[in-house]
Amino acid sequence: MAGSPLLDDLRAALGDDAVLTDPDLLRMHQRDEADLCPAGTPLVVTRPRDTAQVVAVVRAAARHGVPVVPQGARTGLAGAANAVDGAVVLSTVAMDAILEIDPVSRIAVVQPGVVNATLAAAVAKQGLYYPPDPGSWESSTIGGNVSTNAGGMCCVKYGVTTEYVLGLEVVLASGEVLRTGRRTAKGVAGYDLTRLFVGSEGTLGVLTEITVSLRPAPEESLTMVAVFGSTAEAGTAVAQIAARGLTPSLLELLDQTHLRAIEAYRPMGLRTDAQALLLAAADTGARAADDLARLAEVCEAAGAEEVYAATDAVEAAALLQARRLAHPAMEKFAADAFPDGNGGLVIDDVAVPRGSLAALLDGVARIAEECDVPIGVVGHAGDGNMHPNIVVDRADPASLERGRRAFDEIMRLGLDLGGTCTGEHGVGLLKRDWLAREIGPVGVRVHQAIKAALDPAGLLNPGKVL
Amino acid sequence: MAGSPLLDDLRAALGDDAVLTDPDLLRMHQRDEADLCPAGTPLVVTRPRDTAQVVAVVRAAARHGVPVVPQGARTGLAGAANAVDGAVVLSTVAMDAILEIDPVSRIAVVQPGVVNATLAAAVAKQGLYYPPDPGSWESSTIGGNVSTNAGGMCCVKYGVTTEYVLGLEVVLASGEVLRTGRRTAKGVAGYDLTRLFVGSEGTLGVLTEITVSLRPAPEESLTMVAVFGSTAEAGTAVAQIAARGLTPSLLELLDQTHLRAIEAYRPMGLRTDAQALLLAAADTGARAADDLARLAEVCEAAGAEEVYAATDAVEAAALLQARRLAHPAMEKFAADAFPDGNGGLVIDDVAVPRGSLAALLDGVARIAEECDVPIGVVGHAGDGNMHPNIVVDRADPASLERGRRAFDEIMRLGLDLGGTCTGEHGVGLLKRDWLAREIGPVGVRVHQAIKAALDPAGLLNPGKVL
Repeated sequence: MAGSPLLDDLRAALGDDAVLTDPDLLRMHQRDEADLCPAGTPLVVTRPRDTAQVVAVVRAAARHGVPVVPQGARTGLAGAANAVDGAVVLSTVAMDAILEIDPVSRIAVVQPGVVNATLAAAVAKQGLYYPPDPGSWESSTIGGNVSTNAGGMCCVKYGVTTEYVLGLEVVLASGEVLRTGRRTAKGVAGYDLTRLFVGSEGTLGVLTEITVSLRPAPEESLTMVAVFGSTAEAGTAVAQIAARGLTPSLLELLDQTHLRAIEAYRPMGLRTDAQALLLAAADTGARAADDLARLAEVCEAAGAEEVYAATDAVEAAALLQARRLAHPAMEKFAADAFPDGNGGLVIDDVAVPRGSLAALLDGVARIAEECDVPIGVVGHAGDGNMHPNIVVDRADPASLERGRRAFDEIMRLGLDLGGTCTGEHGVGLLKRDWLAREIGPVGVRVHQAIKAALDPAGLLNPGKVL
Repeated sequence: MAGSPLLDDLRAALGDDAVLTDPDLLRMHQRDEADLCPAGTPLVVTRPRDTAQVVAVVRAAARHGVPVVPQGARTGLAGAANAVDGAVVLSTVAMDAILEIDPVSRIAVVQPGVVNATLAAAVAKQGLYYPPDPGSWESSTIGGNVSTNAGGMCCVKYGVTTEYVLGLEVVLASGEVLRTGRRTAKGVAGYDLTRLFVGSEGTLGVLTEITVSLRPAPEESLTMVAVFGSTAEAGTAVAQIAARGLTPSLLELLDQTHLRAIEAYRPMGLRTDAQALLLAAADTGARAADDLARLAEVCEAAGAEEVYAATDAVEAAALLQARRLAHPAMEKFAADAFPDGNGGLVIDDVAVPRGSLAALLDGVARIAEECDVPIGVVGHAGDGNMHPNIVVDRADPASLERGRRAFDEIMRLGLDLGGTCTGEHGVGLLKRDWLAREIGPVGVRVHQAIKAALDPAGLLNPGKVL
């Protein structure tokens, strides 16, 4: 393909070094971190450096009728960044400039390839705070975070990515450059196109610039854990925390499977006999101790066996680190659960109304038993957003099939409880069928109508979401 | 028209008492509270009681090729609810049930005709808080608030209506019923259709049910005022408050014109010699006094001549009342400014980045002088969202023309300062040209494409926004 007219067009516009066809590199850009999703081999990976080059890529691909698949750091968990065969991958990693930080208007303007942690650190230097903190925050990009409307641990108090996106520059399928939104704290001029693009997973346009709002830096925080003899009690505690009007800055749940996996991965004296652990924080400075005491009181009333507060910042950081290690520890646990390291994790993502958290946890335990697969549960309890992690033997089709069945049963349970099929990971390829079930035929038709209005040829990230 | 086939269809579906053709009533439903906007006479005003009846109205109108204009309490300030000649007005006032309040999930589900103050009071009884508080909150409906993405005084800390809309039921132009969004704290399933409908001013569908998120009741608040010898100093104080990371729960500005108008309307000892007054509050309970002290310090550093805190709740309420009276007082001031009570107000709405507030205030003063019209400025200083109120003689075409010119100059200034043509009142009929200028030709085309995708016949609230 080295001499194809499309490649010639791309090289002419971007230069040879931004138009990559090395087979290893193409393989590397086939997929994000989602399991169970198909992925094709792209024709080429492009790394445009500015909006004009993105326009050139989109226009060249359109001229040749070739799909464009935008990619950030490929840390997504729904296959939204997976390539399709013969596609032009448009990687935003070379567009990684922080263009502006304005402490008075409390905004930052960034290119899409800026890494979340890089932005967070840059604004922190100015006493500001960019809250969205997906698990991948040390490597994922703001463009990817916006495209998937990423969540994280801060959301229970501060909301998800979309709450922080004020405006966008987007290259449309036509190659036109659209500017949406604003730099002001308030604004209601026209349809909210900004939030239409947020979470649209690259199917409606390619983000080239993002204006985010920032908060003042939070005050110092304190952290506590509550240990429960049953997951249902932990779920009750979460519901009661909400009912009492308490607003922790973090409220996470780890089940016994995760506690044991973390303790095996990095021993830190976690109570592995507990059925569930709630990790909570209050970032309210001088009031944090009082706020934690109220949280502790609710946990004890809900049946916690033990509640302890971190006595200093080091201990608090260790507790947070335990939570951050849940994913790699569980991956290791899964790998070791079957011969030859063939074990793997199917990571699910479901959100239910807070009051239904206990029912969700009970239901997942029942599904694990019925489907005969180990399932560990971890996640953002305060938002009712949990990640049931299903352990499968990748070498055993029967095990994979049981895992897939458990995955579907969890989705069904989530919807039955008034929830959604994805709290923060997105739809991508993984959950198209469940999205359709959740939003129904009218919802699907409206999605299709909007997609057709903005991308009539269907060349932008085809097959994702819908 | 009493026997037209459309009216027959409507009466068959809704019953005679919900299908109104009394000429006085038709006149009453011609327009909202916006000035300078055309309004037609509707054929009929319908008052459906449930979603099925809304479907019947939309389908009947579509069959006969007649436009549908949704209306709430008609308190809007951009003409978005104005009728067009021969249209079916779809009034939601009979759909006024609060369907559910869930304190654990912190949500409420309401019909669109519920009045903002009614919802606020109902959730307050359960220790909850629905923040959006447009000036019209005692009479405007949640449906209207959502359709215009209404703001208010709370927004500086708590954000505008769209931040609180989790899900919608919408009757589409096709008569299909779409459900968007969710009841969960988090969710990223598919395109954010919810927020596409929020602020779309009835041009994409008719809202029939709204799920809003709620907050825990705020703590007790304290209130203070700072008196300035120049509006620029007040603007500087606002910028410094933001730069210092302070988060007042209210930060409003009244200029001298408004102070004098209020004092004339209801004497309360306001400092009418001041050029500007900032009104601030902190709803942080035990910390409120400290937080106010910090705000006071910034105001003094910016040049405030006097800062005083309300010593009790009665005095605090009086200060808030002064702010709430700004609009009627200014209406009275305008009416009295010309013979025979022919004076009137053209209410503008512009938002700029906080750092540009002082420049906006200076610019508006210059425009008042250049256009030779009195302009009073009041508004949500903490958000950079101001309402320049232009005083005109309705009986004098030259005065109206000068007012119109000032209005346009303010819009131009707002955009030049990186702002938006509407911070919270919306586009409606009043600002279609300015919206087009703000979002540019690509933005207009995307708006048109989305409108065409959802309402191909163009029968939903035609002529609004676009």
